[in-house]
Amino acid sequence: MARSGDSVDVRVQRSKAAVLAQTYELLTSGGIGGVSIDEVSRRSGVAKTTIYRHWPSRAALLVEACSTIGSTSAVPDTGSFDGDLTALTEELAEQLRSARWATVLPSIVDVAERDPELAGLHADLHARILAPFGVVTERARARGELAADRGPADVTAAVAGPLFYRRWFSREPLDAVFVARVVEDALGLLGVQPRPA
Amino acid sequence: MARSGDSVDVRVQRSKAAVLAQTYELLTSGGIGGVSIDEVSRRSGVAKTTIYRHWPSRAALLVEACSTIGSTSAVPDTGSFDGDLTALTEELAEQLRSARWATVLPSIVDVAERDPELAGLHADLHARILAPFGVVTERARARGELAADRGPADVTAAVAGPLFYRRWFSREPLDAVFVARVVEDALGLLGVQPRPA
Repeated sequence: MARSGDSVDVRVQRSKAAVLAQTYELLTSGGIGGVSIDEVSRRSGVAKTTIYRHWPSRAALLVEACSTIGSTSAVPDTGSFDGDLTALTEELAEQLRSARWATVLPSIVDVAERDPELAGLHADLHARILAPFGVVTERARARGELAADRGPADVTAAVAGPLFYRRWFSREPLDAVFVARVVEDALGLLGVQPRPA
Repeated sequence: MARSGDSVDVRVQRSKAAVLAQTYELLTSGGIGGVSIDEVSRRSGVAKTTIYRHWPSRAALLVEACSTIGSTSAVPDTGSFDGDLTALTEELAEQLRSARWATVLPSIVDVAERDPELAGLHADLHARILAPFGVVTERARARGELAADRGPADVTAAVAGPLFYRRWFSREPLDAVFVARVVEDALGLLGVQPRPA
């Protein structure tokens, strides 16, 4: 309910925030199939016509509700590629174990198979979640730590491949031993010598 | 419609086959969220009560409809681990590019996050799709080609990790160059010397 002293702007912002929060709540509890404009309207108390005024489609609403996923912590800068990659891989493993988006991403992968607009959402999310690996890779190339033919996509795939496989497909635990082996194997594939222990 | 000459058994088998075919059709066109008993009944012409007599739940029906996925071709036996792994990885890449189950698996991964019965379906599918890698690994260990501490799970993860990542997450093409590199990298990680070219 709008309070009489509020400006229109404040009320609009509050409605939008409520809609986005309920969308994210439905998304993380039931996957993307659980998000309907009807249910978002019911839970947020914001009329469907108002929701459609701000977001022309369910996909547009989902895109904005997911816009905070993956835009998290600072990129580590430990002085070596090995150190940066270890820090980032441990952080990604922790998110895969506990972040709410980790339970939702498969439903976004699923709809991306069939819906081009949501395939765009998937591509954005994927790029944001893995962007820090690109930053540390460029830095390592500038320092001459990486072979010129190994780029961000290779580094990302070497780390995210085994982590994602284990999180969503084999469903084995992402424990410290496994995470350390992923980093070691990735460095080996990329031709980087680990720091002396 | 039952023909008057048919035995009860033949009619039952025909109904069950129709139900399973329509379930698989709905699954592969719309993901697991697209499968409802109502819709399966409507499309197959088999009454809901009959469907529930054969399968106590939607999950049980899905499990049987998916039972042919992954139980495909013969396991290659080329005489070397390198040769077997190359053949299997190329076959898996081909399936990921074109098999209908490849567009459906993300929806099964998704529901496995929330539904224990369907998590069982996911585990069965995953095991069946990747079982041939276990067979060639055990054979290679018996021949002494693999270090004793590298087992089927390591081999499977080294191949399926990068392929699955690329198919469903980065959505880049699974081309021949990439597939060859996956095999080479996997052999490197597993400490196996490739055959001389």
